[in-house]
Amino acid sequence: MNKKYPNELKVWKGMEVKDAIQEFSKAGFCARGLGEAHYVWKKMLEDKECVKILSAAGALVPGGMRNVFTTAIKTKLIDVLVLTTGSILDHDLIEAFGVRHEQGEVNVNDVELAKKNINRIYDVYLPNQGYILLEKKLREIFPKLPQEELSPSQFLYELGKNVEDKDSILRVCAEMKVPIFDAGITDSITGFHTWMYSQDHKLKLNPQLDIRDFLELVWKRKRYGLIILGGGLPKHFVAGMMQVTGNSLNYAIQITMSRPEYGGVSGAPLREAKSWKKVAADALTADVVCDATIAFPLLVASLL
Amino acid sequence: MNKKYPNELKVWKGMEVKDAIQEFSKAGFCARGLGEAHYVWKKMLEDKECVKILSAAGALVPGGMRNVFTTAIKTKLIDVLVLTTGSILDHDLIEAFGVRHEQGEVNVNDVELAKKNINRIYDVYLPNQGYILLEKKLREIFPKLPQEELSPSQFLYELGKNVEDKDSILRVCAEMKVPIFDAGITDSITGFHTWMYSQDHKLKLNPQLDIRDFLELVWKRKRYGLIILGGGLPKHFVAGMMQVTGNSLNYAIQITMSRPEYGGVSGAPLREAKSWKKVAADALTADVVCDATIAFPLLVASLL
Amino acid sequence: MNKKYPNELKVWKGMEVKDAIQEFSKAGFCARGLGEAHYVWKKMLEDKECVKILSAAGALVPGGMRNVFTTAIKTKLIDVLVLTTGSILDHDLIEAFGVRHEQGEVNVNDVELAKKNINRIYDVYLPNQGYILLEKKLREIFPKLPQEELSPSQFLYELGKNVEDKDSILRVCAEMKVPIFDAGITDSITGFHTWMYSQDHKLKLNPQLDIRDFLELVWKRKRYGLIILGGGLPKHFVAGMMQVTGNSLNYAIQITMSRPEYGGVSGAPLREAKSWKKVAADALTADVVCDATIAFPLLVASLL
Amino acid sequence: MNKKYPNELKVWKGMEVKDAIQEFSKAGFCARGLGEAHYVWKKMLEDKECVKILSAAGALVPGGMRNVFTTAIKTKLIDVLVLTTGSILDHDLIEAFGVRHEQGEVNVNDVELAKKNINRIYDVYLPNQGYILLEKKLREIFPKLPQEELSPSQFLYELGKNVEDKDSILRVCAEMKVPIFDAGITDSITGFHTWMYSQDHKLKLNPQLDIRDFLELVWKRKRYGLIILGGGLPKHFVAGMMQVTGNSLNYAIQITMSRPEYGGVSGAPLREAKSWKKVAADALTADVVCDATIAFPLLVASLL
Repeated sequence: MNKKYPNELKVWKGMEVKDAIQEFSKAGFCARGLGEAHYVWKKMLEDKECVKILSAAGALVPGGMRNVFTTAIKTKLIDVLVLTTGSILDHDLIEAFGVRHEQGEVNVNDVELAKKNINRIYDVYLPNQGYILLEKKLREIFPKLPQEELSPSQFLYELGKNVEDKDSILRVCAEMKVPIFDAGITDSITGFHTWMYSQDHKLKLNPQLDIRDFLELVWKRKRYGLIILGGGLPKHFVAGMMQVTGNSLNYAIQITMSRPEYGGVSGAPLREAKSWKKVAADALTADVVCDATIAFPLLVASLL
Repeated sequence: MNKKYPNELKVWKGMEVKDAIQEFSKAGFCARGLGEAHYVWKKMLEDKECVKILSAAGALVPGGMRNVFTTAIKTKLIDVLVLTTGSILDHDLIEAFGVRHEQGEVNVNDVELAKKNINRIYDVYLPNQGYILLEKKLREIFPKLPQEELSPSQFLYELGKNVEDKDSILRVCAEMKVPIFDAGITDSITGFHTWMYSQDHKLKLNPQLDIRDFLELVWKRKRYGLIILGGGLPKHFVAGMMQVTGNSLNYAIQITMSRPEYGGVSGAPLREAKSWKKVAADALTADVVCDATIAFPLLVASLL
Repeated sequence: MNKKYPNELKVWKGMEVKDAIQEFSKAGFCARGLGEAHYVWKKMLEDKECVKILSAAGALVPGGMRNVFTTAIKTKLIDVLVLTTGSILDHDLIEAFGVRHEQGEVNVNDVELAKKNINRIYDVYLPNQGYILLEKKLREIFPKLPQEELSPSQFLYELGKNVEDKDSILRVCAEMKVPIFDAGITDSITGFHTWMYSQDHKLKLNPQLDIRDFLELVWKRKRYGLIILGGGLPKHFVAGMMQVTGNSLNYAIQITMSRPEYGGVSGAPLREAKSWKKVAADALTADVVCDATIAFPLLVASLL
Repeated sequence: MNKKYPNELKVWKGMEVKDAIQEFSKAGFCARGLGEAHYVWKKMLEDKECVKILSAAGALVPGGMRNVFTTAIKTKLIDVLVLTTGSILDHDLIEAFGVRHEQGEVNVNDVELAKKNINRIYDVYLPNQGYILLEKKLREIFPKLPQEELSPSQFLYELGKNVEDKDSILRVCAEMKVPIFDAGITDSITGFHTWMYSQDHKLKLNPQLDIRDFLELVWKRKRYGLIILGGGLPKHFVAGMMQVTGNSLNYAIQITMSRPEYGGVSGAPLREAKSWKKVAADALTADVVCDATIAFPLLVASLL
């Protein structure tokens, strides 16, 4: 990208999100990263050989991102979803089964909330009833799934087909044939109930098999793009799969509030991954330091 | 504000910034704060008795916010500007005098940049020539100013009238009669050159006099709204003036990436200021954890 | 803990780490959290019914924490280790097999590092040779392990017994009978090579089985203490196991630089977990906002 | 400094703070910065031509750092103090006049605190009575001060001589002839009351005169060392004085939790200041990402 002059950034009445994001690419600091992310994602969309992977960590469904995910999937902004633990899985299913997350307060007495069976996620409340319903509904669905050993991606595809709620991320992924990988599914309530069910049924979940399924995907494609929301295990998983297969990401966008100084994978800027060859030396990259609840909807809206 | 359901947040093609900000108010986490900031600022605009103060710390001109400031001032989104040090002052004047900030790189050899006389501010470059020009032009303007002891707000008004660049924040403030307070002006290059000039001229700058001028403003008005960009001294100054006069802010919006755990004023959430009565118990407030280069243009665009 | 006066905090010549930590408990801000963490961990050690779990995310071995881990394990400051992915696993084995992490630079050309086969983790370098050696040595050890389906904790115990390096975390854990749980082991290079090996051998790794093994541990004990380094999946795993068994943590210490505002589990303060009943209403807790490479060695040194 | 191996970092029973800090210099991530800060400060102490300046922003007295400051001043670890606003000034005087900061809670109802006249600073409470006492005592002291125009450094020296409390930072500075600069004193309660008093007395405070006094200090010395706590205006002031006099810092240590991505001076790493020549190309520097309430006492204790 060519040098730009921050003083040329403008705002105006009736400005569209797409314009704002493009203006940001003239700015400095965090706005610039967001503008560059738009550019990198657009280049990814133009590259017909590129598989576009979205990795997501964190409680993004409670944060309000459900429709942003399904919109991005339906409009083919992404081809593959990589999750961590149950952060998105459990919350999407709870919503699908009818219990809604709602706005709450941060500065609250958590022991009092506990007495009311309300679980808090920063400023969002989730009635604990949601977990009781999750168990009940999963137990109804499990018998309909293939009674055999499944990888998380196979399992989540089969599960998605059995979710009725049309706004469910799992269902939309199943419909759009967007695979969902989740190497950390063991650490989720869905993972727990699947294990419980597998004690006396043939349905088994084996997270190791997502290596097999993900490698198959890697080998079928030539170019790779990754949009990272929040870092964590799913970022590491995709990057690690690049490392073990000798491939590199050709495009990468990272949206995170984590910082690099304590050496964690979530906050490591994308250029660090170039030393590992997980990101190609000539890859187009954008580091966005902004909460995903702000940056992700703006990016998706700007690319529709 | 009433309880909302994060899952109702939507994105669509052709979405305007105004719509996005309003959708954010349904979300959780950082997006919600941004949506609430829009609401609080709108209420401030509807309250005809309220003086709307914008306090700004940090290198927001290099960050590309110059047009956002002047647009907000021209459209009367704010009535008063409170600056810290020379962060905005020096950079606005340097641009006004013809040296532009430009996009640079973060991961660069700073000693090499120094050899090329390029000053770096994160990912923005400022040719050191800008400071040489700043001194030269200020020395041309100083004789045109009143040769007497001035408060920073008087000084900056007089200075603004003598700036030719129509895009200058100082000039637009002078034209719109928006006073600029700067209790920390001593810590700026403009402050330094003013002191040098005052050694053998009657023009003197006395930062203490901004107390007088700011109190006059406080006493004339009944209700107070503050939009805080980045925290720091200007946030503290406005809040401190409330404290010593027994007044309280009726509206407050804080946009910062600082965090509260180390006890600094920049990261302290607005509710902390309620214990000090600097913010009224029933004030409308919004805490936005997001870089101002993203949040400020979105808010201004959404309110035009 | 009783109210204290920050002005009573003192420093002196020859001060021991133990004294410093205790002085911190009189302070405010981040120091106070560190002082309280010492107090909570000490109470945990005095409670003979309490199982002391350490969960660790992040590249703590490259960060220099290897001896701190083994010292804490050998002196029984902890009973159980819960890891995420391969962050500690892979790095511990690489060191055990003879390739050392070394201090590097942050502001470096990562593409040049890649050409020299040096992987960077913030300011630490790891020769890529470490990963080649890791594969080679694991292939030598795998035939010595039980050729059957193993949980990660069983697998890591067996692996630890076969590590020669006396300074290895895995070996010390095996010797001290400190189980290592790792529900996200699939996302590690060790996990990958185990999967490769399992293609034509009977040794299989099934992360879901760590649910079984961890539940067994939970059911055997009555009281639970957790020290969290960095948050992430291992924090969530332990808390989730409390949730599904209807238990609660009686003691909890969290050491992290993550912040709560974006709704991630890593940055959520411990009181949030009280709303979920994952942490008991009357639990002793301490939230430490400090990098684990500073806080963890100070805490361990103060408790020896 | 030579390359080191993080795995050589050790902890032991009875470890002194000095040992811990030196072990940290072998680590990676944030611990390494703290170890390097010890090394740089030690080199500064060995350099007899170097003036050692400590700049401090933030509420470090409520945070419990009062004795750490006075110990560092009495043992000549620093020669000059540069403050911002009233953060340290007002709080030191309030303690000197008999009102103590005390440990409080973060998750509290701030409106209820306001009713009890308790001001909150994160997890520290300050009875509002402290401010009433501050006004009363200052009014008693003002007539004893020279009735003329004073720079902040002259004013604070005279004020310090009139403080009875032997633990006062202001008094210890006066006794040790350690000048205190405060270009932002206008933004403090002490600054406000001085202005009020000056309305009908000859005592006047002119912050611009700290430029004169600081330049005198710069011209008398050849080499400069700066320890920065928290960034902000005082960091910028010292660096700015270097810029305008064509000097550079030969040693610099920065202790802050601010991050660089939003372009603020507080979070900018020291190498950025090399592009400005505010820090010499060959300066010894250390960036510490840690709250000052942890890092500052450890550093001072390690250097006694």
